[in-house]
Amino acid sequence: MTGSPAVGSEAMMRRDRASASLGMIVHRSEPGHSVVTMVVRDDMLNGFDVTHGGFIFALADTAFAIACNDSHRVTLAAGADITFLKPTTSGQNLTATALLRVKSGRSGIYDVRVTVDNDVTVAEFRGRSRTTNLPVPARTHL
Amino acid sequence: MTGSPAVGSEAMMRRDRASASLGMIVHRSEPGHSVVTMVVRDDMLNGFDVTHGGFIFALADTAFAIACNDSHRVTLAAGADITFLKPTTSGQNLTATALLRVKSGRSGIYDVRVTVDNDVTVAEFRGRSRTTNLPVPARTHL
Amino acid sequence: MTGSPAVGSEAMMRRDRASASLGMIVHRSEPGHSVVTMVVRDDMLNGFDVTHGGFIFALADTAFAIACNDSHRVTLAAGADITFLKPTTSGQNLTATALLRVKSGRSGIYDVRVTVDNDVTVAEFRGRSRTTNLPVPARTHL
Amino acid sequence: MTGSPAVGSEAMMRRDRASASLGMIVHRSEPGHSVVTMVVRDDMLNGFDVTHGGFIFALADTAFAIACNDSHRVTLAAGADITFLKPTTSGQNLTATALLRVKSGRSGIYDVRVTVDNDVTVAEFRGRSRTTNLPVPARTHL
Repeated sequence: MTGSPAVGSEAMMRRDRASASLGMIVHRSEPGHSVVTMVVRDDMLNGFDVTHGGFIFALADTAFAIACNDSHRVTLAAGADITFLKPTTSGQNLTATALLRVKSGRSGIYDVRVTVDNDVTVAEFRGRSRTTNLPVPARTHL
Repeated sequence: MTGSPAVGSEAMMRRDRASASLGMIVHRSEPGHSVVTMVVRDDMLNGFDVTHGGFIFALADTAFAIACNDSHRVTLAAGADITFLKPTTSGQNLTATALLRVKSGRSGIYDVRVTVDNDVTVAEFRGRSRTTNLPVPARTHL
Repeated sequence: MTGSPAVGSEAMMRRDRASASLGMIVHRSEPGHSVVTMVVRDDMLNGFDVTHGGFIFALADTAFAIACNDSHRVTLAAGADITFLKPTTSGQNLTATALLRVKSGRSGIYDVRVTVDNDVTVAEFRGRSRTTNLPVPARTHL
Repeated sequence: MTGSPAVGSEAMMRRDRASASLGMIVHRSEPGHSVVTMVVRDDMLNGFDVTHGGFIFALADTAFAIACNDSHRVTLAAGADITFLKPTTSGQNLTATALLRVKSGRSGIYDVRVTVDNDVTVAEFRGRSRTTNLPVPARTHL
């Protein structure tokens, strides 16, 4: 069960402690497309009792990482822009949907919409990716 | 000990469970300027064993929130752009330094540099703020 | 023929000397959607003989302004992010296609793709709009 | 007078027809720092009688290009974010001041502030650069 190469996002998510610790669930994982959800917890609230922007960003960033790691080479986030549109709070279930916008050479742009119940958009994220020469780490024992 | 108004960032941070749960320490908190540190933990690593972008963003976002909440009105993050320059990993101590770039009416721009040992820059964040009419929540029982 | 109110983008474009001086042609103008083209001229080239980023941005910005001025109130560009993917040069015909991504209160996000022959994407632009209380200027004599 | 290599920004600006056609004047040109001015003309106004965002962006982009072309290799704009803070109009003299924020490998971030009389900030621009392997074009006959 070790050593065999895997497509980037699969191997990556198996090892991603950050996304796991935040309770993220991956519902869809395809090249250029992903859907990830996360329930907001009390310990994700900022001082105004709304979800801290860092956790909204983290959810979108995980969806972005899944959508852009579609090969056996590591693709990294070079950067991202996020716009916060509506506040959310504890107990709400957030859905991040990532879609490839364009790839050009080693660069890519991926758009991630973060919604809450009834498809209300709470944030829009645009990620800029850069594909490296590094191979995706092999599967490890579980 | 209840009910008295406080300057935004002070009241805000007293209630900010997210920043506390991530182990952030506020070293400086002035209008337009803040310094916040955070040690990267194992549960902040992504599938490539580097710090998940969401936690770098969260640190910068907290520094931004402190620097921009300089009055008795709530100032919110309308959005932000982040560029990731170098990977970091577990055990490293990150420092986010936020500085006001410009205020114009209700809008503000704040730059946050995230560094690691020896002042190496690992990320640059630019936050866009919007000041609301909402009063900062009063102090609560602790 | 004077004084009657018009939907924003129509009245706006009738008066827009900048877009006219750059030779822009509006092919489609609907709420949330526009298509504008421009042929790159010699006087739009930078020192590396490629189209100066300012003119690519200007084309995208005009498409954005048309798509977001869909009411009788002036909508302004609060800001924008552009990624340059491929260089272009004199004589090439650029097409900017703007689409509404999301509206939330007075804020909007519009995506503009700039392409050249064969639908090759040369730039991606994301505009952030803000709708004001100002009425769109009335038609003027022509 | 031909063929001798020059530092990037010098050779570049000698050939930059776009900046010249817009009436830009370079007041300062150093590695990581530049100052460029431009007077807003009638043909730079949009349909609301304010300076079209494309020309503000163009001015900032030229200042950025000068500041980042500090070697004998071509450095390109990978992208940029601009925030528009105040409208300007015909006859006003705009000043763009570019400063290096950080360089990391082939990537750089440069901040450009655009001001009008009395140092009022009208726009803030953050450019993302990428240094290529291409040599800067040699001087040409003038």
